[in-house]
Amino acid sequence: MRATVMYGAGDVRIETVPDAGLVEPTDALVTITHACICGSDLWPYQSMAPSATGNRMGHEFIGIVEAVGADVRTVKRGDLVVAPFAWSDGTCIFCQSGLQTSCVQGGFWGGTRLDGGQGEAVRVPLADGTLFALPVGRDDALLPSLLTLSDVMGTGHHAALTAQVAPGKTVAVVGDGAVGLCGVIAARRLGAEQIILLGRHADRIALGRAFGATDIVSERGEAAVERVRELTQGFGAHSVLECVGHGAAMDTALRIARPGGAVGRVGVPQDAAIPASQSTFFKNITIAGGPAPVRAYIAELLPDVLEGRIEPGRVFDRVTTLDGVPDGYRAMNEREAIKVMIEF
Amino acid sequence: MRATVMYGAGDVRIETVPDAGLVEPTDALVTITHACICGSDLWPYQSMAPSATGNRMGHEFIGIVEAVGADVRTVKRGDLVVAPFAWSDGTCIFCQSGLQTSCVQGGFWGGTRLDGGQGEAVRVPLADGTLFALPVGRDDALLPSLLTLSDVMGTGHHAALTAQVAPGKTVAVVGDGAVGLCGVIAARRLGAEQIILLGRHADRIALGRAFGATDIVSERGEAAVERVRELTQGFGAHSVLECVGHGAAMDTALRIARPGGAVGRVGVPQDAAIPASQSTFFKNITIAGGPAPVRAYIAELLPDVLEGRIEPGRVFDRVTTLDGVPDGYRAMNEREAIKVMIEF
Repeated sequence: MRATVMYGAGDVRIETVPDAGLVEPTDALVTITHACICGSDLWPYQSMAPSATGNRMGHEFIGIVEAVGADVRTVKRGDLVVAPFAWSDGTCIFCQSGLQTSCVQGGFWGGTRLDGGQGEAVRVPLADGTLFALPVGRDDALLPSLLTLSDVMGTGHHAALTAQVAPGKTVAVVGDGAVGLCGVIAARRLGAEQIILLGRHADRIALGRAFGATDIVSERGEAAVERVRELTQGFGAHSVLECVGHGAAMDTALRIARPGGAVGRVGVPQDAAIPASQSTFFKNITIAGGPAPVRAYIAELLPDVLEGRIEPGRVFDRVTTLDGVPDGYRAMNEREAIKVMIEF
Repeated sequence: MRATVMYGAGDVRIETVPDAGLVEPTDALVTITHACICGSDLWPYQSMAPSATGNRMGHEFIGIVEAVGADVRTVKRGDLVVAPFAWSDGTCIFCQSGLQTSCVQGGFWGGTRLDGGQGEAVRVPLADGTLFALPVGRDDALLPSLLTLSDVMGTGHHAALTAQVAPGKTVAVVGDGAVGLCGVIAARRLGAEQIILLGRHADRIALGRAFGATDIVSERGEAAVERVRELTQGFGAHSVLECVGHGAAMDTALRIARPGGAVGRVGVPQDAAIPASQSTFFKNITIAGGPAPVRAYIAELLPDVLEGRIEPGRVFDRVTTLDGVPDGYRAMNEREAIKVMIEF
């Protein structure tokens, strides 16, 4: 079969790899119908050291179950399923508490030992805990939005939850990438009164407004902090969604949070430490978040997608085939595209 | 009147200073009956640059109202009152949300412009929002425990709340100072099932056990982390109370928190950054806390003190007069005393 392999910064190739197949009795074999490229894939795209073996890529996908192992109970051949970006057993102490990204048996797609979603098929470990069967056909118009339940929509929701978004609150979203835009959807969905999107790309800002952003702040650094203060009666935001991951974004997030506020971070941190420990302490800011347990959120978000109340699939502004994936990386990295969907 | 003034590291003097008196119509004049030395007073005691003017010291006190300004309504001459370590108006957006340490008009005792609690009398700004009248006389045996409501007991409670302590949870308390010991009380009071105290001083550990600690970890660094893991089925603690403030303690706190857990930090941070951003992120650890809004907690904790269900006053293992304050700093700094109470 063919799949995406990254060999180093900027070096993404489509190659023939060993066919995916069942190994454990808890596995499912899934043929991919839809996948996508993630903002977090851009971190290695920008910085990965050259590798002789390469890393299989992709952690967001929808596909059709081709076969299941003897112990699989919750999905069957022919099901259209969505996979979260982490696989998990669904039964351990962490899965039971809704934190599937810390599953004691689980893990992440791709790398050197597992298939990635940006390929023709995937062996899914722990299929019962991992896969979620969708009540639609593979040609449904909602597929792009359903695909976001594998990562970005659930991640935006996690940012909003951990930032303690609630009805009537003032929310700021740092970052206008696909996750930040889904954070806007999530904040509105949870009842935020004011949603300030910090971003500077016209296409993304327009989509952010369509998703519910009430204010746009395109300044950076100190000027951005001042502008958010002006928009919030001088107090700052109750809830800040940090959807970037680098230190400057986190610093801005912490500074625009009002005393007693919360920052929900979902951008993968690129720095070893969290800045502004002291000012954050004196303001009693809560810092929460991490990799989103999107598996826990699919059931909650699915009805809103199916009934059209949220349209997170609008973050896909480019569609390609598997052969177009390397150029998709380039386009996202150069901010030509917000998020690229792959159709098989 | 006489009061405590710090002129630099290790240089604490009892001096004659201008008499405290009413200035604003919202002021009260309070004659101190009981005060104490705080662990946070030891930070400047260890590091303050020499100062010609010096800083007035002390932010925990009980006293008798001698006079009130024309606008004061909630306390009157003759009342025995406890003061939180921060003064606050009680009416602003932050006070109304229970975060009096971020009061838009408030501030902290001592320094170069205000009286400190380690002196004969204090001008109390914003007396209505700040002072809490106690329903006991000045010779009541509960005075030491009531005095802890000015800071350490409320601070331990804040650590426990922000670490999300709840019935049945496993809690770890980093630091066996007075705040850590009050954190043990708070964790037990909130229903923790297992309370692991990280500390290494025999007297403090004994008191921690009396307060409800179920396990003691006297190792440090990696060994402490390993020991806590052993005590928690390998998972770590749900809730960690960081009651020290230096980077190594915070690092330990973050490492012993289980995935999805929370660290409530109340030790004043001595470092510019919070360590372990990435591992904390991948574990979805919540970091919360800050200066405790103890004013908000007095009403909740008071009945438990009055009815003897908690005895935080046992953290005072030394009592002195005002003249003994400099030696009290020395004794606390050398870990001869847990916490020193001053009787006037």
